[in-house]
Amino acid sequence: MQRHVDIDKAIERKYPEQVVLVTSRGKDGKPNVMAVGWICVASGEPIMFILGIDEDSHTFELIRETKEFVVAYPHEFMKDETLIAGSCHGDEVDKIAKAGLNTQSAKKVKAPLLSDAVANFECEMIDIIKPGDCALVIGKVVAAHVNTDPLLKRLCTVDKGHELAGVRPI
Amino acid sequence: MQRHVDIDKAIERKYPEQVVLVTSRGKDGKPNVMAVGWICVASGEPIMFILGIDEDSHTFELIRETKEFVVAYPHEFMKDETLIAGSCHGDEVDKIAKAGLNTQSAKKVKAPLLSDAVANFECEMIDIIKPGDCALVIGKVVAAHVNTDPLLKRLCTVDKGHELAGVRPI
Repeated sequence: MQRHVDIDKAIERKYPEQVVLVTSRGKDGKPNVMAVGWICVASGEPIMFILGIDEDSHTFELIRETKEFVVAYPHEFMKDETLIAGSCHGDEVDKIAKAGLNTQSAKKVKAPLLSDAVANFECEMIDIIKPGDCALVIGKVVAAHVNTDPLLKRLCTVDKGHELAGVRPI
Repeated sequence: MQRHVDIDKAIERKYPEQVVLVTSRGKDGKPNVMAVGWICVASGEPIMFILGIDEDSHTFELIRETKEFVVAYPHEFMKDETLIAGSCHGDEVDKIAKAGLNTQSAKKVKAPLLSDAVANFECEMIDIIKPGDCALVIGKVVAAHVNTDPLLKRLCTVDKGHELAGVRPI
């Protein structure tokens, strides 16, 4: 049976929620990374993602500048790296270095791949919309990569307060 | 270390992915339900969702007609109901009856709430965009409800082939 509650209270039941790391690289060559929780597939053929990216973030600035980014799925033990990527500002700190993330070159975009991620998707930005209070960036996947370890699992947000963990089916 | 692979192969690493049930009700009074995997939060204030809804689906037709729908989070033991909602066509079958879903009236929209869901979000459609091969419906949440059992957990898609299960943090 359902009980009517405040919307903000009900949305707390959304977990587990996917979390991704988004890399970008400015025209000055400096790479950046941020954590994004609002993301889903937006098209099947071609594969696209839609992502909520704060307009005040350095990542948003770099994506708008370069029209390119990479979506990486952090693996289940990359909690600390993901929290660092999500909790400081990329125009003040080299977050990739601070988080100790290993990178490698992408195939079609200048933003770096995260070597330890479960998978990386190189994206070309095709649009930005803003239906509410957050910019939604739409990217078309132009190349993809997976970790050479096929057993690695994704990291998820499992509860409010940025509680991150791997999950297993019951 | 990353290995370059086909995009379709890499996207198989996306699981676990959230799954929701979307209810709608035609102007003839008949309710419908479908399963949706491409969904994420699209705004924080007000809360909005963006959902990939097949344009050939009966749900898409009803949402376009009524500009209203409900997003329900199925609980982890609603696997069979979710598979039925996702595998037949609502203009041919009463999927709510076929799946044995219990419903109750919503507060602000005519689409029904799913009584056994973890939570229900009443939505007003505010836009439809189509960046790729799938229509993306954007809905603003106008009322919300949670199950009176606070311990119920969401159902997730845990692997390809519509493999559904509850999950637990490791």
